[in-house]
Amino acid sequence: MWGIIATWRMALEGVTSASKILKEKGDAGDAVVRAVKEVEDFPFYKSVGYGGLPNEEMEVELDAAYMNGNTLSIGAVGAIKDFANPVLIARKLSHEPVNNFLVGEGAEKYAHKNGFERKNMLTERAKIHYHNRSKEMEMEIKPYSGHDTVGMICLDQQEKMTAATSTSGLFMKRAGRVGDSPVSGSGFYVDSEIGGASATGLGEDVMKGCVSYEIVRMMKEGMHPQEACEKAVSHINALLIKKRGKAGDMSLIALNNKGEWGCATNIEGFSFVVATDSLKPTVYLVEHENGHCVFKVASQQWMDEYMRSRTAPLEKK
Amino acid sequence: MWGIIATWRMALEGVTSASKILKEKGDAGDAVVRAVKEVEDFPFYKSVGYGGLPNEEMEVELDAAYMNGNTLSIGAVGAIKDFANPVLIARKLSHEPVNNFLVGEGAEKYAHKNGFERKNMLTERAKIHYHNRSKEMEMEIKPYSGHDTVGMICLDQQEKMTAATSTSGLFMKRAGRVGDSPVSGSGFYVDSEIGGASATGLGEDVMKGCVSYEIVRMMKEGMHPQEACEKAVSHINALLIKKRGKAGDMSLIALNNKGEWGCATNIEGFSFVVATDSLKPTVYLVEHENGHCVFKVASQQWMDEYMRSRTAPLEKK
Repeated sequence: MWGIIATWRMALEGVTSASKILKEKGDAGDAVVRAVKEVEDFPFYKSVGYGGLPNEEMEVELDAAYMNGNTLSIGAVGAIKDFANPVLIARKLSHEPVNNFLVGEGAEKYAHKNGFERKNMLTERAKIHYHNRSKEMEMEIKPYSGHDTVGMICLDQQEKMTAATSTSGLFMKRAGRVGDSPVSGSGFYVDSEIGGASATGLGEDVMKGCVSYEIVRMMKEGMHPQEACEKAVSHINALLIKKRGKAGDMSLIALNNKGEWGCATNIEGFSFVVATDSLKPTVYLVEHENGHCVFKVASQQWMDEYMRSRTAPLEKK
Repeated sequence: MWGIIATWRMALEGVTSASKILKEKGDAGDAVVRAVKEVEDFPFYKSVGYGGLPNEEMEVELDAAYMNGNTLSIGAVGAIKDFANPVLIARKLSHEPVNNFLVGEGAEKYAHKNGFERKNMLTERAKIHYHNRSKEMEMEIKPYSGHDTVGMICLDQQEKMTAATSTSGLFMKRAGRVGDSPVSGSGFYVDSEIGGASATGLGEDVMKGCVSYEIVRMMKEGMHPQEACEKAVSHINALLIKKRGKAGDMSLIALNNKGEWGCATNIEGFSFVVATDSLKPTVYLVEHENGHCVFKVASQQWMDEYMRSRTAPLEKK
C-alpha cells in the first residue's frame, strides 16, 4: 500500500514522479519532497517556487514546510528569498534538534551555510504580472487573489507518512507576511499512525481553525478522510461566517494510513491530484452537490486548457 | 465575571494592572495587552521583551501574538528586532484584513511605518548573560535553556476573551528562529464562546501537537480547563516520548468563559498567576501528585527569593 495526494492540478507531474518512487518502495520523505520540488521548479506556476508572484515590494518571498509523521519532526521556512527549493531547506531543518522554523534573513543564512541552491526566483513573467496588477490597482482596489499553495500528504510502503507544503503566498502581500503553509496544524499535519492533511487558501483564515490538525484528529477517532475533510471545512467556514461575516477560500486534502483519501473545499474550481497503488496519478475537479463535495476526473479538454492558459504569452499592460 | 491567567510569576505585576481594568468593565483586549506590555518592559525578565536573552548573533529577536476570541482575529510577529512592545504590534496586525502574521524585516517595516516605539532591546545584563554563556559553551555543549514565554488568557465582563503571548525565545537560538508563541493553535488559541489556552516551553515540541487548540477543543466538549490541560499535556508528552524518546518542557494554562481555569506542566518548578472577580492576583506553584498537577500558593519567602535572584548583580565570567 502506498499513496500520495496533493492540492491543485499543478502537482500532477510531481505526483507522477513521486508515485514511481513509492511504487519501488522508496521513502515517503524522498517522494513528497521530490514532488514538491518539481512544482517549485516549474516556472509557469504562479504561486509556488520559481515564477511565484512577488510581494508588494516585487520580491518573491516563499514559505514551505516538511513534516515526518513517524517522529512528528517539523522543518519550516517563512518569508525566505532567492533559494530555489524552500521545501528542501524545510526538510533539512526538520533534522535539527531545535531551531526548526526559521524565517527571513535568518532562514537565508541557514540555507546559505548549508549549501542550498541560490536562484533569483523573480521571473520576467512574474514581473509582468506585478506590473499589470499595479496598473489594475491604480484603477480599483480588488481583493487579493492567487494564493495556491501546493500541499501534499504521502504514505510509503513502509507505512511512513509525510507532509510538505510550498508557496509564494498572497500576491502583493506585505514584506515578511507568513501564511499557514509553514504553520504546523494549520497548513499541514501528519502522524504516520493516523494520516495527514494539508491546506490551501487564505492562510490567515486557515490559521483561525488549525484545520489540518483538526482533520487528523477526526481521522484518529476513526473518521474516513472524506468525512473528516468535509466536517472540518464546513465547521470552520460556518464559524468564520458566524463570527466575522465571511470566510476566506479554503481547500483541504487528506490521506490516512490505509491509503484512503478525501478532499473538501468552500470554493468552486478546486482541483487536486491523487495516486495510489490502485490508482494512476489522476486530476480531480471538485463540485458541490447536496452539501457534499463530489469529484470528477478532469477531462482532456480541461487539462489542455489548463496548461495552455498557464503558459500563454503574457502582455504588459 | 472576569478573569485572567498567565504563565510564570513574572506576569504578576501585569496581571495586577489588568485585573484593575477588568474590574472596571474594561476590555479584555486592553487588559491582556497591558499585562503583557508590563512584562515586556521589565528589564530583569530574561525571556520576554526588554532584557530578553539574545540569539546566537547577540541580537534579541522577539515573537508575540494577540488573538481576539470574539472574531478569531489573530495578529503575530516573529523574529522582530528592536521594537519595545511586540505585543502591541501583534494587536495592531490583528486588525488588518490580511497579512496578519509578519516576520523579520517586513515586520519591522510595518512597525516602523505604524509608529511603534523603537528601542535597543539588548541590555547590558543580557550581554553579560551572552558572554557567560559563550564561555560555558566553550567548555561544554549544554542543552538549551531559558524559553519562558509569557502567555495569557483574559475574560472581561462583556464576555469577550483574548489571548496574548510574548517571548525572546530560546537563548542562543539561530537568527530567524520562530517558536510556538506566534503560531496559532500551538502558542495560543481563544474563542470567547468557549475559552482559551496558552503555552510556554520548548516551542518546537509544542508545535508538534497544537496543544493550545487541543485544550480549547476539549473545553468545547464540556471539559473543565484543569482536566483539559492535564489531558492535553499528558497526551502530547506521552506521544513525543513514544515517537521521539523524549519530550521538551511544556506548560499550559487555560481559562474558560465561566472564569474557571487550569494549568498543567511536564516540568518541575512551573509558576503561574491568576486573578478573577473572586480571587486577588495570586502566584501558584505547580507540583505533581498521583499523576495530577496540584497548585500551592507561593510563599512570601519564595516570592522574595524570586525577585532577589532575578535582580541580583551579574558578574562577567
